[in-house]
Amino acid sequence: MHVISETSSNGVIERTFTLGDITGVLWSPESAADGAPLLLSGHPAGMDKKAPIHVARAHASVTTDGFHVATIDIPGHGDRPRTARDNHLIDGFRRARADGDPSFGRILADYCACVAERAVPEWRATIDALQSLPDIGAGAPIGYVGMSLSSAIGIPLTANEPRITAAMFGWASAHDDLLEAAKRVTVPIEYLLPWDDQEIPREFGLELFGAFASENKVLHAFPGGHHQVPRDGGVDTRFFARHLGGVSAA
Amino acid sequence: MHVISETSSNGVIERTFTLGDITGVLWSPESAADGAPLLLSGHPAGMDKKAPIHVARAHASVTTDGFHVATIDIPGHGDRPRTARDNHLIDGFRRARADGDPSFGRILADYCACVAERAVPEWRATIDALQSLPDIGAGAPIGYVGMSLSSAIGIPLTANEPRITAAMFGWASAHDDLLEAAKRVTVPIEYLLPWDDQEIPREFGLELFGAFASENKVLHAFPGGHHQVPRDGGVDTRFFARHLGGVSAA
Repeated sequence: MHVISETSSNGVIERTFTLGDITGVLWSPESAADGAPLLLSGHPAGMDKKAPIHVARAHASVTTDGFHVATIDIPGHGDRPRTARDNHLIDGFRRARADGDPSFGRILADYCACVAERAVPEWRATIDALQSLPDIGAGAPIGYVGMSLSSAIGIPLTANEPRITAAMFGWASAHDDLLEAAKRVTVPIEYLLPWDDQEIPREFGLELFGAFASENKVLHAFPGGHHQVPRDGGVDTRFFARHLGGVSAA
Repeated sequence: MHVISETSSNGVIERTFTLGDITGVLWSPESAADGAPLLLSGHPAGMDKKAPIHVARAHASVTTDGFHVATIDIPGHGDRPRTARDNHLIDGFRRARADGDPSFGRILADYCACVAERAVPEWRATIDALQSLPDIGAGAPIGYVGMSLSSAIGIPLTANEPRITAAMFGWASAHDDLLEAAKRVTVPIEYLLPWDDQEIPREFGLELFGAFASENKVLHAFPGGHHQVPRDGGVDTRFFARHLGGVSAA
């Protein structure tokens, strides 16, 4: 892991890094507690590691909960090139969406699965590298949060990565592989489901929630379409503070 | 309204009262803030206004949020006699449940509707009486919380009572009248749904959630059967503190 830059503002230290082809950012409290939890935060599809809404959420976790928050560019996003297959699938689901073609959902899910194949081992290598940093270490509890494309990555990641002990997902595209991965997720999870999503059938979200093997799982559903999420605290149960242990009194 | 007794313990004043045939309890902070919210709390089916789990929740709302919390015995519960029709329906659904008879759900829902017809006007009269108390008054924001039978009462109550501005329901028995009432509920709501309820079909809970006209509504679903609810904060979004305004810093 090569730290490319280190800056600090409003109590948050930001380190950009590379790890082989991976490009990422680590946000940390200016004075992190020993053993502070590490939250892996997948960025929204179509954005990148420095998207303002994504950075704002990371800062909130750092300042409210005292967490380290790490993110990496999803393959084909931010500083990272797309493959020919990425372009083929993206063109395909965009065309299908524009045409109202019912194959849209399947092509989108194929694209998500194709990206996840690459992103899962990248996240695991990133965890190794982050744990080698002296201010994080191997003992920090680790959580994962990521919606839509970042859920298509996070669900198989969490199924295969025992170091992740709590996770939040939502808006995942319907794919049988995802149902199979969910059956191997046993850690506490929360799942967010927009009730009126035009892009992903509600029934798939309900089926996916049912598939998680976790004994401790909660589905939060709310009105609205694919890009809406309650911002009034309506789905905020302090999930990571409860499961990873917040270190701040906030 | 006749106050029958007044006692105080652990910072909570408890007043038992009668209002005509209605028997109830009001819990208040020892030093309530002016305009402190009033939470109407329906007790669980088969229990009464002083059931320990119900009292414990009321005390928590008083001490954590600074709310007044009021409850009344559901008709046929606690100090209140059952009618012949109550007994007939209760015998009917108990027999159907024991026999595995599919008519169980319908008879249970008929019983809930039959009780709600009486309880809704009783709650409205109780609100009138509580607002006439000098330490509550007409300006206090009012919420309603009640599960299963107390949802079968609370949903039509909230549909018909504009003074209630936020409500939590869950575990409601499948009944068309309830769907119709839900379509007239417009205030913020939360709905709790146990994923593996053997007594009430999951599909009804999902249909009922969809029916609420509220723009601000959240469904929380979690594993477990009819009598289970997460106690680890997994469905706690500080709903009433957000919608009625908590008065404590806790």
